[in-house]
Amino acid sequence: MKKTIITISRTYGSAGRTIGHMVAEKLGLECYDSQIINKIAEESGFDAEYVKQNSEATAETGFFASLTGMDLYTFSNRDKIWILQSKIINEIAEKGPCVIVGRCADYILKDKYDLLKVFIYADDEERIRRITEEYHEASERPEKDLIANDKRRATYYEIYTDQKFGDYHFYDMCLSSSSLGVENCAKIILEAYQKKTAE
Amino acid sequence: MKKTIITISRTYGSAGRTIGHMVAEKLGLECYDSQIINKIAEESGFDAEYVKQNSEATAETGFFASLTGMDLYTFSNRDKIWILQSKIINEIAEKGPCVIVGRCADYILKDKYDLLKVFIYADDEERIRRITEEYHEASERPEKDLIANDKRRATYYEIYTDQKFGDYHFYDMCLSSSSLGVENCAKIILEAYQKKTAE
Repeated sequence: MKKTIITISRTYGSAGRTIGHMVAEKLGLECYDSQIINKIAEESGFDAEYVKQNSEATAETGFFASLTGMDLYTFSNRDKIWILQSKIINEIAEKGPCVIVGRCADYILKDKYDLLKVFIYADDEERIRRITEEYHEASERPEKDLIANDKRRATYYEIYTDQKFGDYHFYDMCLSSSSLGVENCAKIILEAYQKKTAE
Repeated sequence: MKKTIITISRTYGSAGRTIGHMVAEKLGLECYDSQIINKIAEESGFDAEYVKQNSEATAETGFFASLTGMDLYTFSNRDKIWILQSKIINEIAEKGPCVIVGRCADYILKDKYDLLKVFIYADDEERIRRITEEYHEASERPEKDLIANDKRRATYYEIYTDQKFGDYHFYDMCLSSSSLGVENCAKIILEAYQKKTAE
């Protein structure tokens, strides 16, 4: 059986994390998401909320630093977080098969591990419902929250990787949780994983 | 049970047509692909090969004609083919559930019918193998064939629709046939269809 890791990239409010946990539970695997933030906070000394904000928003100075490969002390905090994030994700992957939600794990691990790379999205109506009713994170203008969050997530991904967030070329499957249903997405991923690892 | 139509958009050499036929057979539905070309040829008087070429390649004058809504006699042949294609696809859809491969059916039918919109893709290595060994359509430089065909297909789609070819926003699922396997893609679509229509 192949030692395959499932990576789940997702748009904000698409239930990608819920789906990741469902798949992990059914497979008896660990699912990593916010623990990675906490681990980065622990190792860097930064506050967890600060780490979270700086692993999604636009990297300004970080962009140049990551291109030029300057020494650690000249990196921006965002660059330091990226480096720690890469290290921690590699350490997680070394332990064996698991599910990793977000954090550019699909990119960080792509050349070293066998991956099932999934992208989860949903229509705006369903995402607004979820960030309002389930996450309780919506502002008075949840449409704007979606746009801002999508932009931050995509920009971060595209600055620190050479890939485009949500571009099908970089995933094995892209599933709409609003069209297919959250549980059904988990089922599709589970079966694809079982088939892939049985080969 | 909902009367849902499955539309399959696909990149060249990704086995989208094969998958469409597999799904249709399992569901006992009709699968439409090249019959649409033949029907356009029959109704327009154009040669089938000419229709095929002009329903993928770049539309030059057609672009402006489609924007301005000029009378039929001022349309380019490509515009005429688009209009006939839309009419024929609507006629097919009126008959009831079926599978339609390509021909922008996802866009043409989106506001009038309940659809399961699928996008099939594959990695270049597998596509080259398929267009060489199965389709016997490859030139001496099959990499170039892929690029040219992808470009023609996407350009046509983007000129005659207001959507971007292969952009996840416009599909319910995007599946890599090289990662997941052709038969497994058919199975995933079949099950999603059964779930959707049972609701």
